[in-house]
Amino acid sequence: MIISQSQIDAHNEKGLAAHRKRLEFLTSEIEGVEDIINKLIDFQIAIPSWALGSGGTRFGRFSGGGEPSCLEEKLEDIGLLHRLNRSSGAISLHIPWDIPRDPQAIKNLAADLGLRFDAMNSNTFQDQEGQALSYKFGSMQHVDKAVRRQAIEHNIEVINYGIELGSKSLTVWLADGSCFPGQLNFRRAFNNTLECLQEVYKALPDDWKMFVEYKAYEPNFYSTTVGDWGQSFLYASKLGDKAYTLVDLGHHLPNANIEQIVALLLSEGKLGGFHFNDSKYGDDDLTVGSIKPYQLFLIFNELVEGMDARGMNHATDLGWMIDASHNVKDPLEDLLQSVEAIKLAYAQALLVDTKALNEAQMSNDVAAAQEILQHAFRTDLRPLVAEARLRAGGALQPLQLFRDAKVRQQLIGKRGEKTVATGL
Amino acid sequence: MIISQSQIDAHNEKGLAAHRKRLEFLTSEIEGVEDIINKLIDFQIAIPSWALGSGGTRFGRFSGGGEPSCLEEKLEDIGLLHRLNRSSGAISLHIPWDIPRDPQAIKNLAADLGLRFDAMNSNTFQDQEGQALSYKFGSMQHVDKAVRRQAIEHNIEVINYGIELGSKSLTVWLADGSCFPGQLNFRRAFNNTLECLQEVYKALPDDWKMFVEYKAYEPNFYSTTVGDWGQSFLYASKLGDKAYTLVDLGHHLPNANIEQIVALLLSEGKLGGFHFNDSKYGDDDLTVGSIKPYQLFLIFNELVEGMDARGMNHATDLGWMIDASHNVKDPLEDLLQSVEAIKLAYAQALLVDTKALNEAQMSNDVAAAQEILQHAFRTDLRPLVAEARLRAGGALQPLQLFRDAKVRQQLIGKRGEKTVATGL
Amino acid sequence: MIISQSQIDAHNEKGLAAHRKRLEFLTSEIEGVEDIINKLIDFQIAIPSWALGSGGTRFGRFSGGGEPSCLEEKLEDIGLLHRLNRSSGAISLHIPWDIPRDPQAIKNLAADLGLRFDAMNSNTFQDQEGQALSYKFGSMQHVDKAVRRQAIEHNIEVINYGIELGSKSLTVWLADGSCFPGQLNFRRAFNNTLECLQEVYKALPDDWKMFVEYKAYEPNFYSTTVGDWGQSFLYASKLGDKAYTLVDLGHHLPNANIEQIVALLLSEGKLGGFHFNDSKYGDDDLTVGSIKPYQLFLIFNELVEGMDARGMNHATDLGWMIDASHNVKDPLEDLLQSVEAIKLAYAQALLVDTKALNEAQMSNDVAAAQEILQHAFRTDLRPLVAEARLRAGGALQPLQLFRDAKVRQQLIGKRGEKTVATGL
Amino acid sequence: MIISQSQIDAHNEKGLAAHRKRLEFLTSEIEGVEDIINKLIDFQIAIPSWALGSGGTRFGRFSGGGEPSCLEEKLEDIGLLHRLNRSSGAISLHIPWDIPRDPQAIKNLAADLGLRFDAMNSNTFQDQEGQALSYKFGSMQHVDKAVRRQAIEHNIEVINYGIELGSKSLTVWLADGSCFPGQLNFRRAFNNTLECLQEVYKALPDDWKMFVEYKAYEPNFYSTTVGDWGQSFLYASKLGDKAYTLVDLGHHLPNANIEQIVALLLSEGKLGGFHFNDSKYGDDDLTVGSIKPYQLFLIFNELVEGMDARGMNHATDLGWMIDASHNVKDPLEDLLQSVEAIKLAYAQALLVDTKALNEAQMSNDVAAAQEILQHAFRTDLRPLVAEARLRAGGALQPLQLFRDAKVRQQLIGKRGEKTVATGL
Repeated sequence: MIISQSQIDAHNEKGLAAHRKRLEFLTSEIEGVEDIINKLIDFQIAIPSWALGSGGTRFGRFSGGGEPSCLEEKLEDIGLLHRLNRSSGAISLHIPWDIPRDPQAIKNLAADLGLRFDAMNSNTFQDQEGQALSYKFGSMQHVDKAVRRQAIEHNIEVINYGIELGSKSLTVWLADGSCFPGQLNFRRAFNNTLECLQEVYKALPDDWKMFVEYKAYEPNFYSTTVGDWGQSFLYASKLGDKAYTLVDLGHHLPNANIEQIVALLLSEGKLGGFHFNDSKYGDDDLTVGSIKPYQLFLIFNELVEGMDARGMNHATDLGWMIDASHNVKDPLEDLLQSVEAIKLAYAQALLVDTKALNEAQMSNDVAAAQEILQHAFRTDLRPLVAEARLRAGGALQPLQLFRDAKVRQQLIGKRGEKTVATGL
Repeated sequence: MIISQSQIDAHNEKGLAAHRKRLEFLTSEIEGVEDIINKLIDFQIAIPSWALGSGGTRFGRFSGGGEPSCLEEKLEDIGLLHRLNRSSGAISLHIPWDIPRDPQAIKNLAADLGLRFDAMNSNTFQDQEGQALSYKFGSMQHVDKAVRRQAIEHNIEVINYGIELGSKSLTVWLADGSCFPGQLNFRRAFNNTLECLQEVYKALPDDWKMFVEYKAYEPNFYSTTVGDWGQSFLYASKLGDKAYTLVDLGHHLPNANIEQIVALLLSEGKLGGFHFNDSKYGDDDLTVGSIKPYQLFLIFNELVEGMDARGMNHATDLGWMIDASHNVKDPLEDLLQSVEAIKLAYAQALLVDTKALNEAQMSNDVAAAQEILQHAFRTDLRPLVAEARLRAGGALQPLQLFRDAKVRQQLIGKRGEKTVATGL
Repeated sequence: MIISQSQIDAHNEKGLAAHRKRLEFLTSEIEGVEDIINKLIDFQIAIPSWALGSGGTRFGRFSGGGEPSCLEEKLEDIGLLHRLNRSSGAISLHIPWDIPRDPQAIKNLAADLGLRFDAMNSNTFQDQEGQALSYKFGSMQHVDKAVRRQAIEHNIEVINYGIELGSKSLTVWLADGSCFPGQLNFRRAFNNTLECLQEVYKALPDDWKMFVEYKAYEPNFYSTTVGDWGQSFLYASKLGDKAYTLVDLGHHLPNANIEQIVALLLSEGKLGGFHFNDSKYGDDDLTVGSIKPYQLFLIFNELVEGMDARGMNHATDLGWMIDASHNVKDPLEDLLQSVEAIKLAYAQALLVDTKALNEAQMSNDVAAAQEILQHAFRTDLRPLVAEARLRAGGALQPLQLFRDAKVRQQLIGKRGEKTVATGL
Repeated sequence: MIISQSQIDAHNEKGLAAHRKRLEFLTSEIEGVEDIINKLIDFQIAIPSWALGSGGTRFGRFSGGGEPSCLEEKLEDIGLLHRLNRSSGAISLHIPWDIPRDPQAIKNLAADLGLRFDAMNSNTFQDQEGQALSYKFGSMQHVDKAVRRQAIEHNIEVINYGIELGSKSLTVWLADGSCFPGQLNFRRAFNNTLECLQEVYKALPDDWKMFVEYKAYEPNFYSTTVGDWGQSFLYASKLGDKAYTLVDLGHHLPNANIEQIVALLLSEGKLGGFHFNDSKYGDDDLTVGSIKPYQLFLIFNELVEGMDARGMNHATDLGWMIDASHNVKDPLEDLLQSVEAIKLAYAQALLVDTKALNEAQMSNDVAAAQEILQHAFRTDLRPLVAEARLRAGGALQPLQLFRDAKVRQQLIGKRGEKTVATGL
């Protein structure tokens, strides 16, 4: 392991006094600190296997060095993140980019690193070498039954890999859609897709969930066959109790109120999980919290309130995943920043005085409701997130330690300057 | 009546030769002309009672002259439109702006003018003089049961007015929502609204429909409690078979694919009707077809295809209404332009070679699919729309005749320069 | 005065210990505290005279009680805000809503309240009672020279009122534009507008500034004749050195990068001032910082960096104004929240480690640059804003004191339940 | 040549009677037919060398067969398009994708095919094999002077290639920008970029133009250093008389009024040229006219009116280029459709009754202005476009002939199934 526990301990020792002071101050200012810290410790965010290397756009990609070139190295990178922040204890695999050739060895490695396998991801948006039929005109929506069958089989294969590894959920993101008016019969596309999803659903183990992800556009630029939460909800409702909607923060039209969508899906019992990222224009896949941190907080506010209302376990009853693309930052640094932003937003949401908020709402005291939310958001809760990390064995300042320990340089030394991770 | 049949006849006589020539040419170029003309004759678009005067914005309103100041005058205006275009044979009333003090007299007047009563519209987005409780913080979503009850009673009252007049549907547009994060508990707002809608639904006669209209934003600027088609669909599904979604073209987030929404709602049996208008930025309520005529055609293409697939009657199985605001044009001229644009788009959709389109789709021939749609859109079908009008007794060029006959000047003479129609 | 200094003192006394503790903690954590506090004390945000009553939308307005019904009462309301937060020491008047009938008396009253007169606002977007010519089709863009002349004269009249009161700037917001393609010749509209602005510019005293405000849309919904910063910049450049661009945060297309616009205008020496508010969809005119507080901080970050680079005085070299509409909150509470949000964002921007940021930028260390900005944003600087208020004689918690002292109830007692302030 | 003149003649012979009939009808309906036809004949749209193969997204690319694998084959493809439609008589080259190894041979080939060389395109948005310094953090904005120098040298190299080939303009599209707040100092980025552009400008021959293209976002997702028309205009103004703004239809924020931008740039003498395409969401690079044909017409309406007002030659005084990506259609078919849409929109704009439109505008007759524009747009002018093609030696129905002659199959036969054209 590139960073040892003693390095972490030394790092923490150095910062401990300042941290203690901040924590004490905060403890004297707010209530419920212990409860927040404990929930933060439990809260894990899965890292997608495709986000460990540099991302790119259709205009090109600028690689960094030391990127993982196989599944084992990806697990090691996530293990490293988890060692630093104790909050990245899961990996979300993508097939076929990460087919586990030796599942038991992979499981053992993950166990050694303290990682579990979160949702499996299928891929019917690209053609793979040697693939019989093309997805150029879609997969599950395709007018050709043979293509649809191929897409079904692929998803079942992904489930099977997941079963071997101990995953409990399948995320289906379909790029299906159209680029031009007239290209698709929308009804047929919907019905074909539904039939395929039903076939995959049949193959789903009883204790699994299926996440139906929606996206407004890209890579199709006229229509998308699972285009918004309404369509995803429709599929999930028709599929059955194991099917849920997955929300990716970047998959909406401009100005969408995502927090309301989250609240409604939760209320209907159909919210399955999240792909966290941030964006200014479209599916920009930027670092979580880097553009609209208040929106992120508002989403967590709905999550906490809504999950509590249904008696759900914050840590385990929804799927929490990052889905970002690292075009100009070190991928591991980027992921450390994303996890920090998520935990901070979660902490802020936990700090919201729900009783007072409810009273303000019941008396239409809009200004007071805003004060209550903004108080939670404006309070500097970084000491709580750090304390949770500390108690869980992680580093007070993960990014600082990552840099001090020259992790990237070490990875380049081990893996080389020119490696390219599979992914986009 | 301000325009007599003999004026129309004289107008038509003058333009007939040129019209005949165009029609003959078109008939020699395309197939199915008679069928299209007949469908155009049957197709009526309801005029909302609030769109007969100048509209405004929060920055003010610039009135025109000769606006109708009572329900009778509104009916007369629509009667005039209908006389000119034979396509505006229905009125959509708004309560309390158009309470029929003497329902039988109003019915008689409407019958004389050849008008029927389309969907009734309730209003819980404004406080009326003498109203017991305020809708400042919503109506059906309101935290106070008494406000909700008031909103329910108002809607039932609207149904009752509608029964007296022979209407068969109720459009519920709720401005309910919030302006700030924290103002609402989304789940409670949804459930309160659902309960209220259920109460209204109970009061709905068996042969009525309830249209649940959605809108992304305005007048609330953070959330809307019936904010998108997904939410409307959810309400309508929970309500029952008589509840449907109503689509207003201006009520979406930027870049929304409205035609796909229409196709899916139709396919699910939950599309109820339309509010036609056009827009560039938000709910701009501009003349139909004035900004995005191709989108309008694509929507009609889905309507024709989808209704035919379900064996629906184009003219009667959905509610067709205009909802526009006339800020810089003569309201009646604006409505004539809107109706013309709707009928033209409908004609174009009827011209689409659905068999060839289906073949192109089944072979993923995207370029051919585009050619087929664009051929229908690029063909100049105005002669068919004119012929349909002619056969139905209307004017070849309604707007031209409106101007030649100096209708507005006559209305000003009768009603004065400074009248203000009720509405927005 | 509704709130006495002794009430403020009593309020501060009660909260002082907790405040001192927070301030001490913060002082031990960050550097430059005194400098930030002093800059905060100097920083004043003008309140627009039209924002003291409830705002509305085209769908209606829900009035509150105790709204000011004359200019004197508006001044009193702002005096009250200023007494509470010591940061609202200026008023931005709107003509003709706030014509000072007795300028000297108004000046005396303002002086008593510690208020100065910030930018004067003209109004050529509405027709006033008795106005000779209508602005229905624009004012300075109008095809009729007489209308343009009327608009010029009005602006000169506004300048003259401003001279009497001691104002030093004129804000010209033109609603001019079009609702439909073809309505305007864009070139003619631009040139007409430019000529009119030149006439007004000629009447501008030497020590005055003219602010040319831009807006993407509303109340016109197809084009706007001063539609974006590029157009405003073009006008201002052609006008001369006293002409500047004014940025209203809500006047952009979706997803615009406002902070970059601010940086470029500053760099070109053409940024004149601000209208602060917040929004999710369009010109929603919500409380500053209520929707996108991080964007507000980023804007202030550019302001501080750019003004420092030009050696500008933060407090006096740009015009700082709020322009918001209070539809569901008490206007005065809303304004207190807005001022607080502005000062907080300003404080955060002052905290940015510009040297470290520059180093990160010069080494393309994007992750570090983000850390630096987010550190400033995440630090809870409310104690600094409170301390600045305290030192200036204001209240530690203005909103709290406003409520504790039952200010609104007192205003209703004095002014009545049904007053309506002039404005939108 | 894959399609011979005799094939074209045979094709035309077959369709001639029907065409003549349509043309005669149209000639009897509208005025100025000969003038429109002549202008259509003169109007040529350059094809970009990168648009002859299948395009892709960051999620992948689905190749077609028979794509050109070298510059000669690209010229042949454009020669083929030009032979079919007589409107694609120019190529816009991209360096380094299309470096002419033997310029004279390339010039001869182009001359044989009747093609000239339109604007040259540089590329500083990707790293090329063997490139000394990376553009990961920008090119002309870069903090490192050496990178900026490399970008300058590359552009000068592109000019030199262009001189050899007879081009007269350089298009500079910079992907420069940032993905995160704080990454850039906007002022420094602007100034660095300006300095670099000035260096390139110095190397520009006297009879050349430099086109500064702007783009709102992508591949950078927070800011773009030439982000909107205002910024491009600022650069072009500071550069000098040979510098102009280039408008790409897909490079705007949602809902932008592009036609107004075009009118203002023309009026300021700073419009240089166009990249045509269409889009629904962002820079979707779809077939021209496939999504918003009315907007395309409105843009041409401004172009015709504005160029005529300045006495400009429609065909030669601006640069007309397509910039599209063909993800699901045959690239050559797609380009044929795009050129057809452009010529149709141009013809419609030429049909506009400018005198009547001006009168409507001068009398604020908004409804009449709309009628005038819509009349031109609704009239089916395809016969004029076909006649222009016919007279110029092209095919009546290029796409039909392309298919009938099995061009793609022939290209696959010659070039193979698996070729991949350079480009995105």
